[in-house]
Amino acid sequence: MSIYLQDIPLSEAQSIFHDALEKARLWRILETEEINLDEFSRGRVLAEPVWAKLSSPNYHASAMDGFALQAEATIGASPTSPLVLKIGLHTTYVDTGDPLPEWADAVVPVELVEPLDEKGQDIPDMRRSSAIRVRAALTPWTNIRPMGEDIIATQLVLPAGQVLRPVDLGAIAASGHATIQVSRKPKVAIIPTGTELIQPGQIARPGNIIEYNSIVLAAQVNAWGGLAKRYPIIPDDYEKIKESVLQAAGENDLVLLNAGSSAGSEDFSAQVISECGDLLVHGVAVRPGHPVILGMIHYSKERIVPIIGVPGYPVSAALTGEIFVEPLIGYWSGRQPFEPIEVTASLTHKITSPPGDEDYMRVVVGRVDNQLLAAPLPRGAGIITSLARADGIIVIPAGTQGLESGTKVKVRLYRSPHELENTIFCIGSHDITLDLLAQYLTSFSRRLVSANVGSLGGLVALRRGEAHLAGSHLLDLQTGDYNLSYIKLYLPETQVRLVTWVFRQQGLLVNKNNPKGIRSLVDLARPEVRFINRQRGAGTRILLDFELSKLGIKTRTINGYTQEEYTHLAVAAAIASQRADCGLGIAAAAQALELDFIPLFQERYDMVIPLRFFATDLLSPIFELMQSPSFRNSIAALPGYDVSKMGDFLI
Amino acid sequence: MSIYLQDIPLSEAQSIFHDALEKARLWRILETEEINLDEFSRGRVLAEPVWAKLSSPNYHASAMDGFALQAEATIGASPTSPLVLKIGLHTTYVDTGDPLPEWADAVVPVELVEPLDEKGQDIPDMRRSSAIRVRAALTPWTNIRPMGEDIIATQLVLPAGQVLRPVDLGAIAASGHATIQVSRKPKVAIIPTGTELIQPGQIARPGNIIEYNSIVLAAQVNAWGGLAKRYPIIPDDYEKIKESVLQAAGENDLVLLNAGSSAGSEDFSAQVISECGDLLVHGVAVRPGHPVILGMIHYSKERIVPIIGVPGYPVSAALTGEIFVEPLIGYWSGRQPFEPIEVTASLTHKITSPPGDEDYMRVVVGRVDNQLLAAPLPRGAGIITSLARADGIIVIPAGTQGLESGTKVKVRLYRSPHELENTIFCIGSHDITLDLLAQYLTSFSRRLVSANVGSLGGLVALRRGEAHLAGSHLLDLQTGDYNLSYIKLYLPETQVRLVTWVFRQQGLLVNKNNPKGIRSLVDLARPEVRFINRQRGAGTRILLDFELSKLGIKTRTINGYTQEEYTHLAVAAAIASQRADCGLGIAAAAQALELDFIPLFQERYDMVIPLRFFATDLLSPIFELMQSPSFRNSIAALPGYDVSKMGDFLI
Repeated sequence: MSIYLQDIPLSEAQSIFHDALEKARLWRILETEEINLDEFSRGRVLAEPVWAKLSSPNYHASAMDGFALQAEATIGASPTSPLVLKIGLHTTYVDTGDPLPEWADAVVPVELVEPLDEKGQDIPDMRRSSAIRVRAALTPWTNIRPMGEDIIATQLVLPAGQVLRPVDLGAIAASGHATIQVSRKPKVAIIPTGTELIQPGQIARPGNIIEYNSIVLAAQVNAWGGLAKRYPIIPDDYEKIKESVLQAAGENDLVLLNAGSSAGSEDFSAQVISECGDLLVHGVAVRPGHPVILGMIHYSKERIVPIIGVPGYPVSAALTGEIFVEPLIGYWSGRQPFEPIEVTASLTHKITSPPGDEDYMRVVVGRVDNQLLAAPLPRGAGIITSLARADGIIVIPAGTQGLESGTKVKVRLYRSPHELENTIFCIGSHDITLDLLAQYLTSFSRRLVSANVGSLGGLVALRRGEAHLAGSHLLDLQTGDYNLSYIKLYLPETQVRLVTWVFRQQGLLVNKNNPKGIRSLVDLARPEVRFINRQRGAGTRILLDFELSKLGIKTRTINGYTQEEYTHLAVAAAIASQRADCGLGIAAAAQALELDFIPLFQERYDMVIPLRFFATDLLSPIFELMQSPSFRNSIAALPGYDVSKMGDFLI
Repeated sequence: MSIYLQDIPLSEAQSIFHDALEKARLWRILETEEINLDEFSRGRVLAEPVWAKLSSPNYHASAMDGFALQAEATIGASPTSPLVLKIGLHTTYVDTGDPLPEWADAVVPVELVEPLDEKGQDIPDMRRSSAIRVRAALTPWTNIRPMGEDIIATQLVLPAGQVLRPVDLGAIAASGHATIQVSRKPKVAIIPTGTELIQPGQIARPGNIIEYNSIVLAAQVNAWGGLAKRYPIIPDDYEKIKESVLQAAGENDLVLLNAGSSAGSEDFSAQVISECGDLLVHGVAVRPGHPVILGMIHYSKERIVPIIGVPGYPVSAALTGEIFVEPLIGYWSGRQPFEPIEVTASLTHKITSPPGDEDYMRVVVGRVDNQLLAAPLPRGAGIITSLARADGIIVIPAGTQGLESGTKVKVRLYRSPHELENTIFCIGSHDITLDLLAQYLTSFSRRLVSANVGSLGGLVALRRGEAHLAGSHLLDLQTGDYNLSYIKLYLPETQVRLVTWVFRQQGLLVNKNNPKGIRSLVDLARPEVRFINRQRGAGTRILLDFELSKLGIKTRTINGYTQEEYTHLAVAAAIASQRADCGLGIAAAAQALELDFIPLFQERYDMVIPLRFFATDLLSPIFELMQSPSFRNSIAALPGYDVSKMGDFLI
């Protein structure tokens, strides 16, 4: 077993896989099956074109509720000189859809006639009428749906390869079919492997990983028209993995073997595939996703089954599905591969990319000032939330080392363009209440996308036209006031409104029961106390530096001062996981991770909103919520929050 | 029972319905239910926000296969002066995802170390190594995924109202949930009524209508996240309809009563609804869809159930689903209503519209010369194929009498914009082989949209930049040649290629066994012979007029000369349905409808292709097909077709 993976370009890997499938006679539409035409046919793929068996309508039909008659009999009728037609041999009531009597060639709608009784008197009830008065002449074939108006027997109704939509089912039925030929759904096995894996709901101990890749992959397969089967978790045991792979190959068209595709000490996928068939590719130059395996299992002389070794990192796994599994299911089903909608957006941050790899970067997308912006999400292959939060993907081709901020990029969308239009970009300081705001905004059809770059970073984003609003709590070291002087400095040319969001407590987050006996900022200088800091430009960092200088504490005496995190919750997490002993942050973050909190200061957290966004329809729900008792109460319920000034304008 | 419908504006109808639902306390999200998180959760709607229960990772994890160590121990290591670390207490192998030992603060990947045996000699196998050589210093926290890197406990993972996608399921599982709270699927009853209805597959006699609206509606409901239940067909019997409505109201959240919503003699819907509850709206100013009924069934004191009387015409029925049912299912589920993608396109034809109604017009959409074009489809409410073929809908607001050709219109798309890019617009003369071409093109990811406006109409469309190619068989009365002189006349400024498509037989279509003994064009002048003609500008019409003038037959002596149809198949259908005795057309149309055919002439049918489209990627599959034996053979198999010159260039 080699511990070094190959690193071949994606297109080459795809072509090797394609050739092997072709050689095994598996590069073809799977068998067809005949199914009854009903509502459950939706989403199936037509394996054969549908040619009309019947015309529709298959007789001349009345297009209205009215009276069938001979057009000739109405010649001369006009509003002022009506004609009276006796109901009988050549004038008869027909409902919409009724066949036209053979002798008739027109229908006059009920609304246009006046019912008469036997004596020629007007009566209200059409059904008891003996004659009708007609006030207009009809031309032949008026209000008739001629045979074949919709469909003429033998014409093409739908081409093969059509993914059936509700209205397609109607067109097929109308053309005389009660059954249809569709492609069989490709059966896809998903085998999770790993001794460390546990099921959702089982108690997670350090080292345990909740197994959810199989859920994501199975849901993908089903969404793409396959039939997914999840197999039980197999521990890292060569023989057991081999047994499961062979069983799955016997029962399915494709096997996805999840994790163990790398080259670690317990990565058996490559070895199992080599032994049971052909290892075609081990390692593709795609990030995230790198340690993908492509192979063929020789189950028997007649049965060769493709297998994909899917990397264990969740983002890699989901992207491996999109890149390798979706097109194969599509081809086997006889449909076109899904083509995402692409938009062009402007990159908000400079990004770097490994030059040798095709790089799939997740972004959030929104419109600010008529410009579509793409803000990169965290890059790690382990960050499943980066996919759940993603509005789309940017593919950075191999050979590109990175892209400058402002570069126009093509984004393959995961959402409909309409959702992007309702996106509020809130870039700046992080506060836990933004999660609540995001939740409340959904009922207004607004999506809040918040990027945490600190208060100063938020003002810079506003200056560059990359956000609709920014949360900020920048303490003016001279005046003791918040934000105003910074706005003057950083946004000299932008008219803004400044509105109070909350007052909140800042203090020291420490472990439960405060084992190191930390009481104030003075304790940070103790050598055995490990501090975790916020990044430069964060309001909390400015507050810390201000208070430290007041106390005359040198920052270099603080152990961990250079260790930076970007959010309050990340600071809390660092302490909860014993990576640090304390950090400055908000009470709610302490409560979230069951830490103790030593309150030190109260600060104001404001929203900075450029005037041009202030009165827009997009942002109006935010102002509505600031006045909403339910929203204010849910924030006031968080520890350390005061909403009494929420909504007060400062500028 | 009033026979006159109301005609109230859509927005008013919606608001009346909304108020009645509100009053009945039904304008709310339906109950929630707890379901297991698995691949079948896809598509469900979160009834509550998901807040993280666990952090992910919930321990510091190795991000690589490698050796956990103390970063301090690597200080000074460099490519030229490596350090050797003994595997043991403070250097140990870890796989990706393994928890970091408490004493460790960095991981060096296997690729970057050299394995050594006990004696310090290099060995190939990492697993048997006793020490490792390191050639670079590590900073603390290198190659470690700190606890909470992906998700921090208590943070918002997904907001309520989210329609769950595969990756969302992963994010929820990662945050420690094994179950989720989703909204219950709204249950929707669909009751087809009508004595004339038969099931697909039953033999259709004149007057019978194949019942497929319930399939379309049920598939729509399921696609929108509801749970549809189709009830048996009920004949037009007041008591039976009432019984079925009450049963459905007892079992469902919404009842769709299909057909009988108008005011004909057998339209009982309004009466049943009035008797069982409140008839709120009868008739909405929307076309197609007009006779919609909105009401509430008072099933019991505690149970009020909304009911929609859905018009019987299939296009009306499907649009009633989109307009009234989808938003209600969306609201009940707690998700946002579906918002179609909108594009702006240029209308190819002038259209008229009833000024009082909001008019939903179906269009096909494609790009020609960088301009998005929308070509109207047949308007009839009975034409289900107009919905199956539609790429989108134009909503013409009430008060608009019509729109001029060239008007920019907003199209709500039914297809992804990507599919529109692969659309070939073929506008001109109709030929049956265009259906075959459409079918063959699907395997090239091309979609052929053909509009039948006759040969001259096709040249005009090319001149106006509204088509990629046109089929044409215009006989030059002077030269006896085809198309060339017309191209010079109609496209003087457009460089085109002219390529032979087929030679085909034109002749007289007559009923089986030719009951009127028709032999040649001379018979058309017989008074008892009813002729059916093609429209002006059609090649067949020009051919007819030419041959008639040669024979000295006056067109006014021909019974039916002014009755026009737009396609060969429509002519054949008129004859098959006894509306006419004969017409001029192609042999294949006769065969399609089992008519007899009297061959008279052979004519050339060409493709006219502007030079600027000729060598494009979009059209290249057409030229490939012209050379494909399989395609040529399938055309040659049609009666009266000769493909020996197919693909020959004339210009």
